Order: sequence, then C-alpha cells, then structure tokens
Amino acid sequence: MKFKNPPVNSLSLDFLTELVINLEKLENDKTFRGLVVTSDCPGVFSSGLDLREMCGRNPAHYAEYWKAVQELWLRFYLSNLVVVAAVNGVCPAGGCLISLTCDYRILANNPKYNIGLNETQLGIIAPFWFKDTLVNTIGHRAAERALQLGLLFQPAEALQVGIVDQVVPEDQVQSTALSVMAEWLAVPDHARQLTKAMMRKATADHLIKQRDADIQNFVSFLSRDSIQKSLQVYLEKLRQKRG
Amino acid sequence: MKFKNPPVNSLSLDFLTELVINLEKLENDKTFRGLVVTSDCPGVFSSGLDLREMCGRNPAHYAEYWKAVQELWLRFYLSNLVVVAAVNGVCPAGGCLISLTCDYRILANNPKYNIGLNETQLGIIAPFWFKDTLVNTIGHRAAERALQLGLLFQPAEALQVGIVDQVVPEDQVQSTALSVMAEWLAVPDHARQLTKAMMRKATADHLIKQRDADIQNFVSFLSRDSIQKSLQVYLEKLRQKRG
Amino acid sequence: MKFKNPPVNSLSLDFLTELVINLEKLENDKTFRGLVVTSDCPGVFSSGLDLREMCGRNPAHYAEYWKAVQELWLRFYLSNLVVVAAVNGVCPAGGCLISLTCDYRILANNPKYNIGLNETQLGIIAPFWFKDTLVNTIGHRAAERALQLGLLFQPAEALQVGIVDQVVPEDQVQSTALSVMAEWLAVPDHARQLTKAMMRKATADHLIKQRDADIQNFVSFLSRDSIQKSLQVYLEKLRQKRG
Repeated sequence: MKFKNPPVNSLSLDFLTELVINLEKLENDKTFRGLVVTSDCPGVFSSGLDLREMCGRNPAHYAEYWKAVQELWLRFYLSNLVVVAAVNGVCPAGGCLISLTCDYRILANNPKYNIGLNETQLGIIAPFWFKDTLVNTIGHRAAERALQLGLLFQPAEALQVGIVDQVVPEDQVQSTALSVMAEWLAVPDHARQLTKAMMRKATADHLIKQRDADIQNFVSFLSRDSIQKSLQVYLEKLRQKRG
Repeated sequence: MKFKNPPVNSLSLDFLTELVINLEKLENDKTFRGLVVTSDCPGVFSSGLDLREMCGRNPAHYAEYWKAVQELWLRFYLSNLVVVAAVNGVCPAGGCLISLTCDYRILANNPKYNIGLNETQLGIIAPFWFKDTLVNTIGHRAAERALQLGLLFQPAEALQVGIVDQVVPEDQVQSTALSVMAEWLAVPDHARQLTKAMMRKATADHLIKQRDADIQNFVSFLSRDSIQKSLQVYLEKLRQKRG
Repeated sequence: MKFKNPPVNSLSLDFLTELVINLEKLENDKTFRGLVVTSDCPGVFSSGLDLREMCGRNPAHYAEYWKAVQELWLRFYLSNLVVVAAVNGVCPAGGCLISLTCDYRILANNPKYNIGLNETQLGIIAPFWFKDTLVNTIGHRAAERALQLGLLFQPAEALQVGIVDQVVPEDQVQSTALSVMAEWLAVPDHARQLTKAMMRKATADHLIKQRDADIQNFVSFLSRDSIQKSLQVYLEKLRQKRG
C-alpha cells in the first residue's frame, strides 16, 4: 500500500476514508496475508493529520474527522494482516501514529528524516490512545519525555529509543520490508493473529469504551479560540514556507 | 532443585505435581530461604509442556492438566523463597515460563541453547498469563514481537532483550547461581518477600480471577480437530527425529 | 529550590511541610514556569525520610507524617512546573523518590554518590506508589530487582538502568540543569502541562483512591515491635557513625 496524497500525504478526511476502505478490502481478500505501508511522495512518509480539517470548520465536521482518525487507528492496530511500515520520509504526528500501529517499523537512514509525536510543539496534545500506543512501543519514561517535548527522533536516536525496529540505507527500505514480511509470514496465521489480538486488545478497548467522550473532548478542544488561532498561525507559516 | 524427567524434562502432569509438592515442602521448611532450579538432563533445561498430555485425551484430562500448569506458575511466581534459574540447556515454551517466574535468570553461553515462548511456531498460542509474565520481564514491544514470531533467543540476544539477566560460560552456571543467591539472601527476608508480593500480586490476580474461564478456554481450544491434527503432526515429527 | 535541612536534608515533618508550601507558592506565581531542585548540603541530595519521625512516637504522629509524605509526592509528581533534579550528592530512599517525581534527572559523576530505593536494606518496604513511580521510570523487571535488593546505583549503573537521564561532571550539574530547563521551557506550557497530567494521572489516582488505607497500613506497620526495634538499631548505628 503506497500512500499517495501529494504533496505530503496529509491525512485528510477523504484520504483516511480511502485508507480504511482499502485495508478492509485487503483483509477480506484471503489471498492477502501481509501489507507493506510506504509513501509515494518523495521525502515524506506522511505529514500527519490535515490541519485544514481542524481549522475554520464547524463542530460536526470536527467530530466526523476525529471519528475517521479513530477508525484508522483501530483498523490498523487490530489488523489481522502482518503490517510492516517502510518509512521512507519524514514521519511526524499522525504519520508516526500509523507507523506505531504496524507490526514492524523500518526507517530509511537519512538525516533529513525524523519520526515522533510532536503535537506539543504545535501547542496541541496527543490524545490518550496515541500515548498508549507510544508507551507500548518505547515504554513509559521514554514516552513521557518524548510526548512532553514533542520530540522528533533522527534515525540513530529513533533506533536507540525503540520507536523504529531497524534503520537501513534508503535504497534498501523496500527490500528489507519484504524480508521482514517473509519472516512474519512464516508463522502460522491463526496463532499469530490470536497472539496479536491478545497483545493489543486492552489498548484498543481503552479507546472503544470511551470513543464518544474522546470525540466530544476533541471537538471542544478544537473549538477554543486560542487553539483555532494557533492553528491558523501555524497553517499560515506552512503556506509561506511552501511559497 | 534439579529437574529430572528424562529425556527432556517435559512437564507431564506427574512431573508438574511433583514440582509443586517439592516447592511446598521447601517453603514450609524454615531452614530453606532460597532455591536454585536447574536441569539434570544434558542440554535441556526443560522442553516445556508435555504435548502427550494435550493430544488424544478427553476434556477432563485437559482441564486437570491445565489446572496443574496454572498451579505451577502461581506457586513459583509467588514463592516466598529466592528462586534463581540456572538455565543449562534449551529452554522453550513452558521451560521458559518456569525461568520467567524466578527472581534471576542465568543462561549458559552455548550457541545450541536458546530460550523463549515459541508457541506460535507450533500453531498454538501462549495464554495471557504467559504473556503478562513476559511483558513484565522484557517490556510490551519486545514481548509483542517475540510472542507473535515465537522467537527463541540465543544467549547474546537473550541477554540483550532482557529475557535472561546474565550469560556465563557453561561451567560457571552453578557457581554464579550460588553467588547471586548469596546477594539476594543478604536482604532481610520479610522486607524482600513483601516487596516481591507487591510487584507480582496484580499479575497473579489477573489469572486467579479468571482461572476457570482460562481452563475452559484451553480445553475448547485443544478440542478442536485442527489443533489436535497439528499437534499430532508435530509429535510424529519429534518421534521420527529421535529415531 | 535548594534543599537545606542540615546535615543531610532528611525529610522531617517540618521540612516536608515547608517544601510543599514553597512549591505551592511557586505554582501560584505566574512568573515561575520551572524549578531546579538541588541540595545545599555537601555530598547529600537528601537522605530520605526522617527515621526520627518514625520511631518512638505515637500512631497519630505516624499518620500525620505519612500524610505529609504522600502530599509531597502528589504535589511534585503532578506539578505544572517543569521540575529538573540536579542530584549533587547521595540520593537514597525518600531522596530518590523526590528525584523520580521530576521531569528530568541529572546526577553528578562522583563514585561516592548513589541513588535508589533501598528500603529493604533497612528491613522496611517501599509503598506501592514509590514502586509505581520507579516502574514508570525504569520498567517492571529492573524495578522488581532494584526494589527487592534495595539497590543503590552508582552513576554509570544509574544511567544504564535509566533511574537518571544524564550523568555529568560534578561542576556541570547546575549548568546542565539550566540547559535542560531551557529545552523544556521552549515547549508551549499549556500543551506540555496537559500531556504531563495525561501521563501521570493514573499513577497519582492509584494513591489518591486509597490514601487513608495507605496511611493505616503505614501506621500499623510502624507500630510493630519488630519494626520499631530494627529502626532503633539502625538509628543507633547512624549516631555512632557520626560520632
């Protein structure tokens, strides 16, 4: 599965919906047992959530958008497929979240690429289920520091803290992903799937049990004047940067 | 305590019962404060659960067997004694589980020896309390990968991932175990025991609260035709391998 | 904030109360956004709880004292300020606990300094919320071993196990603390504070929900003859040691 939503694979409502539908198709097609997610946009795995969906819209839109983000996370995190992330570009915030739902993460060894949940740097906060996914991956202490500071890890640091499993030269990302996939597919599907579900069920249930409250929380947070203003300032900067 | 159930210390119902009775005797004898568990069978710490107890028997037998496995885990995990594992041979599945209940694990540095919960490789799954014990030892992410792939770690990897605490030359396993034991016995028993109970109570309670449901789950899983078939195929292979 | 309760910054009831009041003042003064905690007593960050408050007094005094210890932990652990520990001396037990509530820990590279929760060495036990804080910092397995053995880590070990974030030459502890503070203050306060609360709320609630029971437990533990005797022996040794 190659992410293709130029220029930076931002996770717009349409794009999220498309990803979930495509994942569902693959899950239902019994000839597919695994999935490599990677990017077709040079230098960017995914820029994360689309701030344009979170800025200047009405509450109903914010609610619909957030529900789609939750759905994406739940579907990928609990997927029966083996999912390997071949991270071939920058991978902040929501892009990082997608990679954290995968079974294995490979990052291209390019000093321009970094990965992390950098929400606080934008003045917003990662919700508890982003946090839970990160804690599961790198542990409580490293997650506490990374989330508070909004750290983006370069390849060597990313490997050391454990937010990715492997760093390889950029031209070997795809081939490594295929080797890893072969290793995971050598395990009997049924036993692997039940084991994956056992590992992840509690974390997923944490969101499922309070999905509506989480949406309400997001909408009321986004509806604050101060948050809207800071997002507008950030968007304006991005526009100027891109010319 | 030297495991001696030749040829491979498989955990038969009789052997499990004997282990629990012996542990109980030591616990009740106030002259004993610590216990080193090791193997008397060359090259094998324990091959784990005895597939012959899980294959071609009736549901009542499966239930009795599983209750004995639970009992072994609960008794060792919550033991008031200092328990040190001197792992002097291969240590898969149930053998690994026993070592994970100990207070400290020493592995002989022999490339033929490996340790891990490799259930998925046999097409079966480690139950949640095996998983909880592994997560407590090596963390969530490493456990997720190890359990899904059914990884068996060789000495250097085992040390790195933290599934053992120390790797030493094979002829120093027992002497190292005694040094470690001396270090642990230097701590006042009462304070150490209460601290151990505090660390492990939540994990043990997780099983205690749903012990019957876990037995039902195991029995119904084992009673499936597909599982019985795959276990028979595996047992047949083992028999041929041993000539 | 410089701890100054000579000779060893032991956490007497008066000193605990003073610390909480001072923290509250800083929290309410909007010109303060961060706090470095360090010691004014040469060679000692804090010797921890004051055994004189726990020995030869009546139950009401023990209860009052323990409530103050809980209060200190809750206030520091949930502080809205960025709190950096500049550990410039030995840091056992309650001293270690304070450092664990901070957002970042720097330890002076002096082989005489060590840090850890060494309660079992004194024949007493760290309560569950000390344990929870340590598990959050260094993980379950390392905490289990450290707490049972009552380990005090020297600088290199402390860094490796993760009980401190950085070890620097003794004359650079304060300047490093200021650099770290600058990095943390570069993050928007509001987002950082909400993220910190999200990370720590469950752990704090664990104590808040059973605060009275925890006090009762402490009082009844301390009131045992055997515990009082072992504390008196220990205090006597300390007095002789200091001449």
